[in-house]
Amino acid sequence: MPIDRGSGTFSFKYSREVKTYEIDIQQVVHNVIYFYYFEEARIEYLKRLGFQLKKEIIIDGVEFVVAHNEADYHEAARLGDQLTIFARISKIGRTSFTFDLKIVREDGAEMCSGRTTVVAVEKGSGRPTPIPDHMRKAMEAFEGAKVNAAAD
Amino acid sequence: MPIDRGSGTFSFKYSREVKTYEIDIQQVVHNVIYFYYFEEARIEYLKRLGFQLKKEIIIDGVEFVVAHNEADYHEAARLGDQLTIFARISKIGRTSFTFDLKIVREDGAEMCSGRTTVVAVEKGSGRPTPIPDHMRKAMEAFEGAKVNAAAD
Amino acid sequence: MPIDRGSGTFSFKYSREVKTYEIDIQQVVHNVIYFYYFEEARIEYLKRLGFQLKKEIIIDGVEFVVAHNEADYHEAARLGDQLTIFARISKIGRTSFTFDLKIVREDGAEMCSGRTTVVAVEKGSGRPTPIPDHMRKAMEAFEGAKVNAAAD
Amino acid sequence: MPIDRGSGTFSFKYSREVKTYEIDIQQVVHNVIYFYYFEEARIEYLKRLGFQLKKEIIIDGVEFVVAHNEADYHEAARLGDQLTIFARISKIGRTSFTFDLKIVREDGAEMCSGRTTVVAVEKGSGRPTPIPDHMRKAMEAFEGAKVNAAAD
Repeated sequence: MPIDRGSGTFSFKYSREVKTYEIDIQQVVHNVIYFYYFEEARIEYLKRLGFQLKKEIIIDGVEFVVAHNEADYHEAARLGDQLTIFARISKIGRTSFTFDLKIVREDGAEMCSGRTTVVAVEKGSGRPTPIPDHMRKAMEAFEGAKVNAAAD
Repeated sequence: MPIDRGSGTFSFKYSREVKTYEIDIQQVVHNVIYFYYFEEARIEYLKRLGFQLKKEIIIDGVEFVVAHNEADYHEAARLGDQLTIFARISKIGRTSFTFDLKIVREDGAEMCSGRTTVVAVEKGSGRPTPIPDHMRKAMEAFEGAKVNAAAD
Repeated sequence: MPIDRGSGTFSFKYSREVKTYEIDIQQVVHNVIYFYYFEEARIEYLKRLGFQLKKEIIIDGVEFVVAHNEADYHEAARLGDQLTIFARISKIGRTSFTFDLKIVREDGAEMCSGRTTVVAVEKGSGRPTPIPDHMRKAMEAFEGAKVNAAAD
Repeated sequence: MPIDRGSGTFSFKYSREVKTYEIDIQQVVHNVIYFYYFEEARIEYLKRLGFQLKKEIIIDGVEFVVAHNEADYHEAARLGDQLTIFARISKIGRTSFTFDLKIVREDGAEMCSGRTTVVAVEKGSGRPTPIPDHMRKAMEAFEGAKVNAAAD
């Protein structure tokens, strides 16, 4: 099931510079660090929708955990590079939703693309639970028609 | 193309304990940390085959970079857990090879499964280059029939 | 030799928010992470003086390494906190210089204070070498009288 | 108050190899990573004394936080280096205790020495609280006469 993650439009972007301590033995941003960039972009995306995480990763009594994470690496970012992480929610199910992510350098070169699936779980039991209704509505409103047809 | 990553046998395993500083705000090993565990297991796997990386990530003048990384999270590891990372090379192409990885707690529960594709590149240009011949032979000998049918 | 690191004025400040993945098992920013914040502030300080590090940690053929690092922890930062890292160079020797650092929350509470000594070394040999002259001059001009009396 | 941290005997040691992802842009172990090594050694030290941390950093209802951390860097560790972290408790006060730490390469070269002060605090309030009595006794028994004369 190939998905063309890099194409199409993204509803959100977030920029940040590469940090010295993110560079690895090969003089490039370590491949694992991109997953932290993805996380930063997801958190900023949720903030934009009004979900400010303070002190914990909980919204309306529901906790959010990552169920799947993946990245394709295209080109290597280096010290001093200014990166933009593009994010969109491409799928919203009953208890989970999926982000598409793409990292682009200031000259337009694509460094990395990826995808993260997040699951809503009950605090304590860890069992999947429905995404809070106003959160789902906020995501659907922000993403528009692009996300409508998705299922769990 | 669903692959049943958790099943079948693995040719290599590597154990390590969860570290205090790997635990996150949700009191579990942060989801990104598993990719570091995968990396540790890949490096130990290569050592077992006689490829000791000293000072750099280079074997016979060839550098190795990660082209794809993914993880499915099943259960959350916690402080004090002893984890075993199982690894096998499931595919060897002309210029790249793919690891299947699986992380299991000491009570047998599976925490995480994943996959990493590594590409051999020319130092400097970064262009894909054939996997050094004796490295390919060592991988094939170690993995046996399981890996034979693969292509790039 | 007690030094009153938190007092007096600082010539530079840099702000950033706490990231989700920086929070540890105790629900606060992990104590080691503050040293990364110090590093970010030192790099931003040098940028402000015109020393843009691109691709490597080298200025005029001279490499810079950390010889000493320390932090006193006063209060714990949490998710969502906006932090300001104050920095000043308090001492410039022939081959090394020392930063005083202080991290303050948006409500004025001091989280952490610290100090880092950086040594100029020859690329390759790693032997201490004089700080490039125009770099020393830029630091002295930026810090003014506060830094004049220092020795190696 | 100069202390000769590298000299004298250490009651505990812990070994581990440098990991690929700990190497930085300068091709050496990043200076901040040594503080994680210190933490690993402190945790292993406490385990040796019978204090197994499971799920949280709490012993007998008391939580432990780092109040001070420092390191002097002498030589740079590289990929493939096998390191031994030596640890001893050099001072035990009423509510805090201090570790001396030293990191040595397999050829005897000293990479780094440092010191960490840990404070016992009440879970919740975060206020300093006496070190649990049997923990203090275990530390004193393990360290012997070297630690007796210390005060808070």
